[in-house]
Amino acid sequence: MTTSHSIDALVDRMTLEAKVAQLGTIRIGSVLDDGSFDPARARETIPHGIGRVTRVGRESGLPPRQLATEIANLQSFLRSETPEGIPAFVREESLCGYAGRRGVTVPQAIGMASSWDPDLVAAVASAVGDQLRAVGCQLTLSPVCDLGVEPRWGRIEETFGEDPALAATMTDHVVSGLADSGVDATLKHFVGHGRPAGGRNRARPTSSLQEMRDADLVPFRAGIEAGAPSVMAAYNTVDGVPCHANERLLTRLLREEWGFIGTVVSDGRGIEMLADDYRIAPDRQAAGVEALTAGVDVELPERECFGDRLVDAVRDGLVEESVVDRAVGRHLRQKRRAGLFDDPDPHPETVAEAFEAPEVASLARRAARRSQVILDNDGLLPLSADTTVAVVGPNADAPRNLLGNYSYAGAENADGGVDIRTPRAALRERVDELRYARGCGIRAGPDDDLDAAVAVAREADVVVACVGGQSGIDVERDSSGTAGEALDRAELSLPGRQAELVRRVAATGTSVAVVLVSGRPLAIPEVVETANATVAAWLPGQAGGAGIADVLLGTDPGGRLPVSLPQTVGQLPVDYRHPPVSDGEYVFTDAEPLFPFGHGESYAAFSYGELSVSPSQLLTDGSLTASVPVENVDTRPGTEVVQLYAQHRGGRTVRPVRELVGFQRLELAAGERATVGFDLSTGTVATHDSAGNLVVEPGAIDLAVGRSSADFRARQTVELTGGSSSPERRPPIASSTVTFS
Amino acid sequence: MTTSHSIDALVDRMTLEAKVAQLGTIRIGSVLDDGSFDPARARETIPHGIGRVTRVGRESGLPPRQLATEIANLQSFLRSETPEGIPAFVREESLCGYAGRRGVTVPQAIGMASSWDPDLVAAVASAVGDQLRAVGCQLTLSPVCDLGVEPRWGRIEETFGEDPALAATMTDHVVSGLADSGVDATLKHFVGHGRPAGGRNRARPTSSLQEMRDADLVPFRAGIEAGAPSVMAAYNTVDGVPCHANERLLTRLLREEWGFIGTVVSDGRGIEMLADDYRIAPDRQAAGVEALTAGVDVELPERECFGDRLVDAVRDGLVEESVVDRAVGRHLRQKRRAGLFDDPDPHPETVAEAFEAPEVASLARRAARRSQVILDNDGLLPLSADTTVAVVGPNADAPRNLLGNYSYAGAENADGGVDIRTPRAALRERVDELRYARGCGIRAGPDDDLDAAVAVAREADVVVACVGGQSGIDVERDSSGTAGEALDRAELSLPGRQAELVRRVAATGTSVAVVLVSGRPLAIPEVVETANATVAAWLPGQAGGAGIADVLLGTDPGGRLPVSLPQTVGQLPVDYRHPPVSDGEYVFTDAEPLFPFGHGESYAAFSYGELSVSPSQLLTDGSLTASVPVENVDTRPGTEVVQLYAQHRGGRTVRPVRELVGFQRLELAAGERATVGFDLSTGTVATHDSAGNLVVEPGAIDLAVGRSSADFRARQTVELTGGSSSPERRPPIASSTVTFS
Repeated sequence: MTTSHSIDALVDRMTLEAKVAQLGTIRIGSVLDDGSFDPARARETIPHGIGRVTRVGRESGLPPRQLATEIANLQSFLRSETPEGIPAFVREESLCGYAGRRGVTVPQAIGMASSWDPDLVAAVASAVGDQLRAVGCQLTLSPVCDLGVEPRWGRIEETFGEDPALAATMTDHVVSGLADSGVDATLKHFVGHGRPAGGRNRARPTSSLQEMRDADLVPFRAGIEAGAPSVMAAYNTVDGVPCHANERLLTRLLREEWGFIGTVVSDGRGIEMLADDYRIAPDRQAAGVEALTAGVDVELPERECFGDRLVDAVRDGLVEESVVDRAVGRHLRQKRRAGLFDDPDPHPETVAEAFEAPEVASLARRAARRSQVILDNDGLLPLSADTTVAVVGPNADAPRNLLGNYSYAGAENADGGVDIRTPRAALRERVDELRYARGCGIRAGPDDDLDAAVAVAREADVVVACVGGQSGIDVERDSSGTAGEALDRAELSLPGRQAELVRRVAATGTSVAVVLVSGRPLAIPEVVETANATVAAWLPGQAGGAGIADVLLGTDPGGRLPVSLPQTVGQLPVDYRHPPVSDGEYVFTDAEPLFPFGHGESYAAFSYGELSVSPSQLLTDGSLTASVPVENVDTRPGTEVVQLYAQHRGGRTVRPVRELVGFQRLELAAGERATVGFDLSTGTVATHDSAGNLVVEPGAIDLAVGRSSADFRARQTVELTGGSSSPERRPPIASSTVTFS
Repeated sequence: MTTSHSIDALVDRMTLEAKVAQLGTIRIGSVLDDGSFDPARARETIPHGIGRVTRVGRESGLPPRQLATEIANLQSFLRSETPEGIPAFVREESLCGYAGRRGVTVPQAIGMASSWDPDLVAAVASAVGDQLRAVGCQLTLSPVCDLGVEPRWGRIEETFGEDPALAATMTDHVVSGLADSGVDATLKHFVGHGRPAGGRNRARPTSSLQEMRDADLVPFRAGIEAGAPSVMAAYNTVDGVPCHANERLLTRLLREEWGFIGTVVSDGRGIEMLADDYRIAPDRQAAGVEALTAGVDVELPERECFGDRLVDAVRDGLVEESVVDRAVGRHLRQKRRAGLFDDPDPHPETVAEAFEAPEVASLARRAARRSQVILDNDGLLPLSADTTVAVVGPNADAPRNLLGNYSYAGAENADGGVDIRTPRAALRERVDELRYARGCGIRAGPDDDLDAAVAVAREADVVVACVGGQSGIDVERDSSGTAGEALDRAELSLPGRQAELVRRVAATGTSVAVVLVSGRPLAIPEVVETANATVAAWLPGQAGGAGIADVLLGTDPGGRLPVSLPQTVGQLPVDYRHPPVSDGEYVFTDAEPLFPFGHGESYAAFSYGELSVSPSQLLTDGSLTASVPVENVDTRPGTEVVQLYAQHRGGRTVRPVRELVGFQRLELAAGERATVGFDLSTGTVATHDSAGNLVVEPGAIDLAVGRSSADFRARQTVELTGGSSSPERRPPIASSTVTFS
């Protein structure tokens, strides 16, 4: 066991080169030769050791067991041939599954959030963590904690949606799930990446730090309270200062105010951008000094600013060595807490279980099923199995298009046809007869053949039109993608001829179920109007086809929207949690979204009783219990997500018109009844005042419970009396209990 | 003369009721009976006096001379029958001309800004001021200093566009022009109203106070430095706090940091909104106390929070009387500085000159002419007079549609057909033959008759299509308008069938000149592509028809865009002055605007020589001279607007990719040559650091001169050496000189 004291002693012993090496990253490719660890290359590349090794699954292209062997060799080299024998953090992406060969891919984050099922999210994270840990990764670059309030932004699929409380809950469960498997989460991107001006990746956020305190910062704080040991800085500026040079954010807020003790890692090229793009540093060396001083501890993906340039900067007196020591100490302490000084090596003996156990595949399928949202249904769904189904659309039979951004080698699996069943393949096994015509591509192209789709539609009882986008998959811009990193859009329509495809097949008179396979929330009121039913399947992962078939054929998914769906791009932003304004509608357009946050239809019907709140008056530092009976009044089983919203009023800071403060996913048999109770601390409606202090002021809390952020079934008001209170923390969400009766 | 000392003594003498009366406003209607001042009503309504009287032109409906008489009677009543005999500030709107009966209307602010002609702006403000002062107004609620960066927002027409330096220059000249006529300007809306989220009036701004320091705040500071004695608070929040309750903005920044000594007035209902909408005060009385304490001195349009409720609040100990005294003192000092204790009365003897002098009408025409921007011209323009012109479109012959928001009684003039010639009427006098068919309305309607427009197009040599929007005119929502206050839009297309109208007339093969009569920047790439020439005429006022005819027939208007015109609403924001980002284009759309800020074609052609800068290296508190020769290389006279842009780099705060630091409108005869010199202080490229201090850090200034923000003809770089400097102020723009050679 390396104690705190011994970390300090270790840092004292290290040479400057060895210390700086701990702040840098290499790609695994730089120490491999033909897929095998090459000690000669390593001696040349990392003679002083290395902080982190990245892209191990993706860049090596190795299957898990072989990768584990090579990583073990690398760690052995570091232990035996570098000065202090310090193991590296080994890392791979895992946003929607372990992003290496043979990794199981699960729904992209926006789909996971749609499940409103934190335990499922934790289980998935833990399963992904087992895969990571098996191959030798003790660290991953997820979850994305950015709020998804900007559908033009290509990365919105990576978020848990627009709501701070929902995103905080999911973040908390990912962090814990990964930790259960021995993997360190990295919360990213700190902060504001999710609301870029114009939806353009890296653009400045459209909120101030003050406004983000009760919103964008909430999931980060929840992740840190759940024990996340690492945070990634965002590309953007906040209040005019790039996050990578933002001492106020990285040091004062994160460490001094929140007590964070882990490491801050740069985003790829994030430090270089201080010089190259933002032009606030004359060169990359100066950029490195700025970033390190502000609070960035580790650079990725390579050592452009924190490598030799930083060694020279210390030697030339541009920065005190103590600033380097501070970062090294933080990183080594993270390594110690992660067990690297005890057990840094892969666990090849767990590879088979982690990658091939049937439970893993069935978890992926359950996740795919629960992440779907029935947006609209005139009764067409569920389909009967004794039906002739025409499956059309570019996402009906394209394995790769079921996968989210950052699924890399998962995409290789797709290319190899491994493990991924498409909606077409899954439905073929479940219905009497199935016909298929692609109809058109995601983008318009010479192979588009709408007539072929119309022909199969004419012969069928029902059309299933799988339309949407294609995620870029690779972190580098993928020119065929319509979503993903740096793949931002200025409109939110279905690309290419897909809307026309839906219109044409619907014009045959055959009923149409539209399945949206898209990580981006689209603005497609005409498509929804044309279809008899519309299901948002997001990017459901390798079991997406099976999950879609499950839902179309009758499993109530229980998914609810984690984002508001706009009617038109010109309406943005449409997130429900806005401050009060009172100017009504646009001249030619409603101000309301097409579907509100929290919305989702069920195959069953539910009735709500009265909302009971006790006590009806409490002190500002008190807590209350709110409970509501819910009954499945249908003849089918179904899943309801009971949602509790609040507005605090009477304080000196403007509060959103409503905010989610509690939710409970609830599966009820036909006729079954349960009471959902929420234990709500007043801290959950606390706000940061203009001085940055968390306060609960006297006034009142208006509570409303219901089926979405715009469909309330019962309301109550609670008076808050006494003086202002100052809670230490703001629990993002009420705890909930279910009592069946 | 009432001295400072005597103001304090006066406040000491006043009863609480009399003091509170000075913080309130009445509409003139409440003291009129059948159009005449009614002392009995006044005794009942304002027994303790009154701070301000509003809507005198609009609500009275009286012609100027009669209005002057009634206002004189009102002031006489106040002097003789109220406790301390304090005259009222009398007020009317004047955003695009005196907003009372017989007022002359000039181009809406966005058009005035398009002239890039500050002297013209000052002359117009002074002419408007003469009318105001003649009828007895010593105060007006203009200029709008908000930056116009959000074309969805219905009020963007009221702004001087998106650029802080241009808006600051225009603000400065309006304030001075009004002051020359003895009228107090009110800078509004402090601050952030011009960048509301979603373009929705009153929504929160999409920038933080820190980001607004070098942008949105610049015109306000320029107006205050020009002597503006009053500032209006904005409806929106800044960093989560409503401006009407924002002590940081209204007291610390405005007064303590900037040294403002005038009054802060509420926007209409702005104080009530603290209770009714923002819910940060339990009732209107508490809202009044919040606002007064934060720094709002005067309420408008009535006395909902600062009237009897404030008297009671003082009596009940909810607020110290000294807080009331502070506001009363400020207001009385403003009255003293405005001369109210010496000469409060109307100047009826100047009514004829102010309203009827031919110079006033010709000034309106010159302003209308110079405010137009030739966006695109394939050579069709200028038109020859011996031509058959088909005039079509809903704005070709609709007098009211030439007028901007807040032109109230100007609209009555329009209804009466007084003084307003439409484009149809003006062109009819200037060309050989003119045919007219409206074609369609602004909104689609049963009277649309595109075929009729096609028929006249077929018979003509050229079509002039006057399309665009209709400003709401009245401050209350006007259901027929498509722009103006609370008339926000979610798309930026031409409303109704107007785009189809342009397509149809163009399909005849006849050349088409599109004239955009719209205060809102539209996103209409297809219309521009279809037309042979497109002119943005904005809302040109009563002489708009004549001004449009002048330009179509050959007068080079010299107008340049004060806003970037987007290609599509989904691209917003497109203002040119953004921080650096590096992610290129959208998936399906350019990130660049259709026409950039500063763009405008000329009837002549100009060549630029080298940009000479001296010295090439200077201290951070120095200044430089940049000069560039410009030549009209055409055979026609023309107007060029020489524009100088800069980026400071190397400091610790991110700077926009470029920002306007100098401009000079320049009329050159054929073959004429001139050298434009700019004297640029480093203070003009200063920025506010994260602590709010103004600094110039060492590094470099990249300078570029050219025809727009995206069309540079010459560049230079200047090194800044030495330590950081801290200028006291940031001159918004370089002074410029022209040397003809």
